[in-house]
Amino acid sequence: MSQIIFQYTVRSEPSAIQERAEALLLEQTVELPRKALADSWVNEHIVGKVLEVTRIGEDFFSLIISHPLRTTALDPAQFLNVAFGNSSLQPDVTLDNIEAPIELFAKFKGPKFGIESIRAKVGVQHRALTCTALKPMGLPADRLARLAYDFAIAGLDMIKDDHGLADHEFCSFQSRVEECQTAVEKANAETGLSTIYIPNLIGSPETVYKQLEFARQRGVGGIMISPMLVGPALLHELADGKAGLPIFAHPAFGGAMRIAPQVLLGQIFKWFGADAVIFPHHGGRFSYSRETCLKLAEFSRSTSHGLHPAFPVPAGGIKTSRVREVLEFYGKETILLVGGSLLESGSELVAKAKEFVAEVAEVSKSL
Amino acid sequence: MSQIIFQYTVRSEPSAIQERAEALLLEQTVELPRKALADSWVNEHIVGKVLEVTRIGEDFFSLIISHPLRTTALDPAQFLNVAFGNSSLQPDVTLDNIEAPIELFAKFKGPKFGIESIRAKVGVQHRALTCTALKPMGLPADRLARLAYDFAIAGLDMIKDDHGLADHEFCSFQSRVEECQTAVEKANAETGLSTIYIPNLIGSPETVYKQLEFARQRGVGGIMISPMLVGPALLHELADGKAGLPIFAHPAFGGAMRIAPQVLLGQIFKWFGADAVIFPHHGGRFSYSRETCLKLAEFSRSTSHGLHPAFPVPAGGIKTSRVREVLEFYGKETILLVGGSLLESGSELVAKAKEFVAEVAEVSKSL
Repeated sequence: MSQIIFQYTVRSEPSAIQERAEALLLEQTVELPRKALADSWVNEHIVGKVLEVTRIGEDFFSLIISHPLRTTALDPAQFLNVAFGNSSLQPDVTLDNIEAPIELFAKFKGPKFGIESIRAKVGVQHRALTCTALKPMGLPADRLARLAYDFAIAGLDMIKDDHGLADHEFCSFQSRVEECQTAVEKANAETGLSTIYIPNLIGSPETVYKQLEFARQRGVGGIMISPMLVGPALLHELADGKAGLPIFAHPAFGGAMRIAPQVLLGQIFKWFGADAVIFPHHGGRFSYSRETCLKLAEFSRSTSHGLHPAFPVPAGGIKTSRVREVLEFYGKETILLVGGSLLESGSELVAKAKEFVAEVAEVSKSL
Repeated sequence: MSQIIFQYTVRSEPSAIQERAEALLLEQTVELPRKALADSWVNEHIVGKVLEVTRIGEDFFSLIISHPLRTTALDPAQFLNVAFGNSSLQPDVTLDNIEAPIELFAKFKGPKFGIESIRAKVGVQHRALTCTALKPMGLPADRLARLAYDFAIAGLDMIKDDHGLADHEFCSFQSRVEECQTAVEKANAETGLSTIYIPNLIGSPETVYKQLEFARQRGVGGIMISPMLVGPALLHELADGKAGLPIFAHPAFGGAMRIAPQVLLGQIFKWFGADAVIFPHHGGRFSYSRETCLKLAEFSRSTSHGLHPAFPVPAGGIKTSRVREVLEFYGKETILLVGGSLLESGSELVAKAKEFVAEVAEVSKSL
C-alpha cells in the first residue's frame, strides 16, 4: 500500500524529540500508546513511520512522518484528520508539507475546470485575467448590479461577490444573483465581451446546494465558496460533479490554522477541487511572505498527479498602482483580483476599472 | 436591530491601536476603507462600532467590537465569517469572547437533546456519566464489536468510535455500526443497563447523511462528528432537525484556530447544536489550561438564551487513576471519557472498566 508523507515542524527539547516524534506519529491514526497496540496487522498496516528527524533550530525539529494511505480512507475529511486532526490541538506542531501518492488522486481529482476552461469561458488566452469584488455588504441588489454593470462595461473578466455577501434580509441571494447576472449579460451584449459573474455561496450544505441550483439556472459563470466556513469536505463534493461550474475558493476562517498557507490553500483546496484559489498577496493587509505566495501560486498551477492547473488569485488590498509589480511577480497565468482600490474611486469607477484592465493587458505583453 | 459583540486581543504598537481597531472593525463586514463607504444606510446599519480599547500589556490590547446582528444573516457560516473570517488570516488577532443577543437564538437553537435527554437515554440521573472509545483504527468490525461488548458488560454508559474510524476498506462504516450496535444490545440484554453506542460520522455532507441514515435505522444512541472536519455549518444543519439523535462534537482539526477554545467548542459548537462537547482536559496530551477547561464546561452547561445545557466531555489521555481529581474539578454533570487507559489493560479490560465505572459512581456520591 502506498504511503502519504507529512512534514511537520515541532518545538521540543532535543532530549525529548524522539519521544515527541513517536507520539505525533501515533496521535494521528491509532491514538494509542505503542504498548496498547497488540494487533500485528495494525502494527504493520496502519501505524506509519517516523522517516526523518532533523534539527532546524535550538528547540525546533523538522519531522517527516509517513502513514499508510489506507488510513485516509480516500475521504477528504478523514484525509485532514490524518494530516492534522488531533495534532492541531497541540501548539508545538505545524504542518508544513504533504507528499501524496498518485493513488490518492483516483479519488481527489482536483480542479474540474482549471485554468484552461476558465480562460475559454472568458475568452482570453494571452494575458493575465482581471477580477473584482462587489461590495460593501449592505448595498441592495440593484446597487450591486449597477456596480457589476459598470465593471463589466470597463472590461473586467470576472466580477465576484465579496465573501461576506450572504442571504441577507437587505439583499437576498436570489435577488442579488438575478440582478447582477442580468447586469453582466446586458453589459456583455454591449461590449461583445464574455465577462462572468461569480456569486458567493454560503451557509450549511443544504443552503449551499439551494443557492447553487438557483445560480446555475440563472447562468452564472462560476461560484465562490469559503471552504473553511462551509466545510472543506463540501468543496470536494461540489467539485466532484455537483457544481458543474468553476469553483473559486476563498480563504476566510482558514488562516488561523497552523498549516502552512501553501499547503492548505495551494494543495488541499486544489486537491479537493478548487479551480481558482484566492489568497492575500504579500504587502497588503495580510502577512503572507513572498516565498509563501510564490509557493502557493506554484502549487495552484501544478499539473502533478495529472490534475488540471488551478488559477492563483492574489488579492487582499492590492492597489491598481501595483499591477506591474504583482504581475511581474506571478506571471500571466494569474487572475488579478482588485476590489477596494476600484471601489474607492467613486464616480471615477468605470474609468479606473478601464485603466486597470488596460494595465493588465499592457503588462501581460512583456511577461 | 440587535448588536453582536466580539472581544479580540490584538498585538499592536500603542500609537497604532486606534487605526488597527478601525481596520479590524471594517474587515469583518464591509471590507472597505471608511472613505469608500459612501452609502449612509450602510454606515448606519451595517458598519459596527469599536466599543472599548483596553491596554492589557506592552503591545497588547483588548478590543470590544459590535456588529449589527443583521450582518450575520442568522446563518452559521456567515456568523463565523463576521466573527473571524478574514481576521483569521491576520496573525496579530485572537478571538476571545462572543456576546450574542437573544435574537440569534431564534435561529441557533443549540442542543436539541442536551444533558437531560442524554441522562434519560442511558438511565442515569445522579452521577457523572462514563464513556470510552473504540480503537485503534485498523481493527476489523468484529474486534471493535468485541471491545464494545466488553465495555458494555463492564457498565460503561457510552461507547463511542474513535474519531479516526472512517469508512475504511478494512472496516467499513456499515459493518462497524451493525456489529457494534448488536454487541451493545446483547450486553444490555444481559446487564439490564442502557449503554449506548455512538458511531463517528465522517466525510463530505452526502457521506455523513448516508452514514446518519444507516446509523439511525440501526438504532444507535447518538452520533459523533468533528465539526471542523465535516464543516461547522453541517453541525447546525444536523442539530436543526436532521440528526434526531444526540450529537457529540469532537475537536479534531479545530484546535489550531486562534479562537479561544471555550469560544469555539463551548459556545459556537454548542450554539450550532452539539449535545455533548468533547475536549482535552488539562494535564493530558494537550495544553488547555485549567481556566480554559472550567470555562468550557461552564459554557457547555449554560442555559442562557433559553438553550438546553450540553454535557462537557473532558478527554485526551485521562488515566483511570485521575477520576477523583477530574470529577472534583468538573462536578457530576459531566461525561468522563477514558479510552487509551482502559485499552492498555489488555486481558484486564473488563475488570479495569468495571473499576472505572465503580469509581465514577463512588466519587459522584461525594460531589
